[in-house]
Amino acid sequence: MSGSLVVVGTGPGKAELMTPATLAALAKATDLVGYGPYLDRIPPARSDQHRHASDNRAELARARQALSLAAAGRQVVVVSGGDPGVFAMAAAVFEAVETGDPAWQALDIRVEPGVTAMLAAAAEVGAPLGGDFCAISLSDNLKAWATIEHRLRSAAQADFVIALYNPASRARPHQLARAFEQLRSIKAGDTPVLFVRAAGTPEAQVLATTLAAADAASADMRTLVIVGASTTRRVGRWVYTPRSEGPAS
Amino acid sequence: MSGSLVVVGTGPGKAELMTPATLAALAKATDLVGYGPYLDRIPPARSDQHRHASDNRAELARARQALSLAAAGRQVVVVSGGDPGVFAMAAAVFEAVETGDPAWQALDIRVEPGVTAMLAAAAEVGAPLGGDFCAISLSDNLKAWATIEHRLRSAAQADFVIALYNPASRARPHQLARAFEQLRSIKAGDTPVLFVRAAGTPEAQVLATTLAAADAASADMRTLVIVGASTTRRVGRWVYTPRSEGPAS
Repeated sequence: MSGSLVVVGTGPGKAELMTPATLAALAKATDLVGYGPYLDRIPPARSDQHRHASDNRAELARARQALSLAAAGRQVVVVSGGDPGVFAMAAAVFEAVETGDPAWQALDIRVEPGVTAMLAAAAEVGAPLGGDFCAISLSDNLKAWATIEHRLRSAAQADFVIALYNPASRARPHQLARAFEQLRSIKAGDTPVLFVRAAGTPEAQVLATTLAAADAASADMRTLVIVGASTTRRVGRWVYTPRSEGPAS
Repeated sequence: MSGSLVVVGTGPGKAELMTPATLAALAKATDLVGYGPYLDRIPPARSDQHRHASDNRAELARARQALSLAAAGRQVVVVSGGDPGVFAMAAAVFEAVETGDPAWQALDIRVEPGVTAMLAAAAEVGAPLGGDFCAISLSDNLKAWATIEHRLRSAAQADFVIALYNPASRARPHQLARAFEQLRSIKAGDTPVLFVRAAGTPEAQVLATTLAAADAASADMRTLVIVGASTTRRVGRWVYTPRSEGPAS
């Protein structure tokens, strides 16, 4: 039997948000490759299944390991959280394909979509992504901070709802504050800002505030931050962005 | 028993991409409210379950009907395709809450996230959403075309990957061509463009081309269009956007 590689996302956390397609891929795998805490979410399937846990940073090395295993005939699943195509492992796998053994291009590779963090975060608070929106990772491990600031300003000027992935980590404590500064120079102070921690898990927590009052210290590594558009509004305990530009009618 | 309302998305099409949480909500419902073709995807659950199918356009009326049923004590599920919070029913439900009977604000309302079309489309072709990206609906039923063009230009200038929802319909055949014109004035002609039709279904079809060669006639109502960033590239039969700004290393 020849090898294969499937890149999956486990969703935001709760088992009920992992797709059946992903669960089926995990059950068939001989080898799971991924960041340790994501692998820990997966119930044991077959007794001959090998788990290759790695550090969070080593994405490209992990992708190469997975491709090597598939090339050796194993049924490999690369495990991300959320959706594997959004700030996760799928891009690293194709980067490894491009820069690695040319034979890897002929491998049976598949990506299974999943529920990415911003969708789970939005669902916790209502429908803040109801209009045009963008997703920006605040991590500058792989891109220049100037690029991130340019994208933040462009997104604010175009009045997108903005989902901020990786808003803070121990190695990068100051970036969210700088992002808020950029956004405050363009967007109104009463723009809704949502800190959604552990969205799509039983520990989900929501802090709804405004851009003027938003404190970057409210975010940690498990937080997704959503900054509204000019039309984003609160109704009771909910926040949503209407489908239209004008006031609700 | 008091009423409740859950807003769900069935995912892109295949049952294997609907989350167990959504399936559980559907099984418990006494009333399903939604656009007819989405309701048709759902296997019959309980014999006393009522299905209220409606036209695609009548989103706000459909939301009000669902809220009225919940207020009358029914267990209501509002059914969208994809994720309910992305160009779908959740925003219409909260707009109906804001503009309707004040008692509706006290209802038990919940949103269940799902796999939205751009994630399924991305998975069909590799990892084109691997960097910062935005989602823009080309429908001008509810917003001005000038707003859409401004967002397209801003997104191109900021070098986002751009996912275009609702690229074409019989009532709006010319907008995708106008969108490509806007993007061509800023982005390079060799930027990858992907037309992904019926993503996440057994009939999925991919057309990979470039911005210079992209023909708006390649899209229909079931198509999701992805326009790459400057870094988006092809490797074999795959398209991906690297996590970093520079060339692969």
